[in-house]
Amino acid sequence: MFRAGILVLVTGPLLPIDSVLPMAGAETERCDAARNRQRLLEAAVSLVDSLGADAVTMDAVAVAAGVGKGTVFRRFGNRAGLMLALLDHTERELQHGFMFGPAPLGPGAEPVDRLVAFGHARLSLVHVQGEVLRAAESSPGSRYSAPAHNVSMTHISSLLRQVPVHGDIAMLAYALVTTLEATLVLHQMRDLGMTIDRLADGWTDLVHRVTRDPDQPNTASVDSAASASATP
Amino acid sequence: MFRAGILVLVTGPLLPIDSVLPMAGAETERCDAARNRQRLLEAAVSLVDSLGADAVTMDAVAVAAGVGKGTVFRRFGNRAGLMLALLDHTERELQHGFMFGPAPLGPGAEPVDRLVAFGHARLSLVHVQGEVLRAAESSPGSRYSAPAHNVSMTHISSLLRQVPVHGDIAMLAYALVTTLEATLVLHQMRDLGMTIDRLADGWTDLVHRVTRDPDQPNTASVDSAASASATP
Repeated sequence: MFRAGILVLVTGPLLPIDSVLPMAGAETERCDAARNRQRLLEAAVSLVDSLGADAVTMDAVAVAAGVGKGTVFRRFGNRAGLMLALLDHTERELQHGFMFGPAPLGPGAEPVDRLVAFGHARLSLVHVQGEVLRAAESSPGSRYSAPAHNVSMTHISSLLRQVPVHGDIAMLAYALVTTLEATLVLHQMRDLGMTIDRLADGWTDLVHRVTRDPDQPNTASVDSAASASATP
Repeated sequence: MFRAGILVLVTGPLLPIDSVLPMAGAETERCDAARNRQRLLEAAVSLVDSLGADAVTMDAVAVAAGVGKGTVFRRFGNRAGLMLALLDHTERELQHGFMFGPAPLGPGAEPVDRLVAFGHARLSLVHVQGEVLRAAESSPGSRYSAPAHNVSMTHISSLLRQVPVHGDIAMLAYALVTTLEATLVLHQMRDLGMTIDRLADGWTDLVHRVTRDPDQPNTASVDSAASASATP
């Protein structure tokens, strides 16, 4: 079921709300089973945080969650199933964060600040989702149909319209979203030694550049130029 | 030999000149053999232009170039070898164009105009390189070590410095170069139905946004603001 959730093709411009709400379909699970799964996934997230994605084995998750190994196998089938469920879990948490969470990631902040916060949140997820997300991106056919990609595109496009940015919103959203791809981020961090702070600063700078319309000087530059010309 | 040329890892910031000059290593080939190969590759490029990449078969290239099928097999081994040689050939032509060709792709134009021309040239190559380039990008490990990626990064970074752009040049170059990736461009054109003109316009707009420093109003906005304030 989680595999289906991960692999489903979302090609429309908007995600159905029930596909991004956390725990969608939970009503079909017994409550204790849902709590059990939640606990296993949170244990897996903690393992990634402290020891990296390679540390997430069926054994380690069972120990960390204080359950028998059989429970983990019954839940996720195998390690691949566990990693996909983990990807789904962190993805839903991010989506919940920008839809309902506190500003600036959630509603209530300026669109540019929300864009900045969204990029930072996604960058910080890469170290959790890491290899799993990279594997999902590695097939040319599925890279741009992955739910994570579609959710990002929809959210970024929506915020660009709210700024508002005057331009080809889809093209600008693609330019932004591609810089958050796990494959690129992992390459920058692991192969090039770039820090997460540098990537976050790069994202902030890029958002500010992209959201300023070239043909329309923004208020700040008009003001500074006007005051400069007013002072001989 | 061509495979090695395609698959070699170029990790440094600058490509050795002899690796980007057209026909490097040609001195090791007999002159007529080199001419022969050139003719076969040009026939293959014509086939892609008129009929698409799928039309490039060993048979079709032999007929188009007016040689025996055996010659094509001796040259390239199989269709995969032919497609890699074709990728190498078009890549070298692009590199020759921006290093030595006429402005605005080549030297002599403003850096921003050269950036625009480079993106347009690479976009127009995608329909030739198409599936071959996408295949080269599909392995997460090799995607950012492919020569085409490194050449683009080096050239874009160099032009950004010449503008000059005040920011994290590498991060901005990544934001630009990822929008030219064959996987993305093919997705936009084939799956989303975006035209090459729309992609080219999107690139032009993105280059202008990225090359304007947010903290420093560009000359145009200062001028227009100053003249606006001078005219009551």
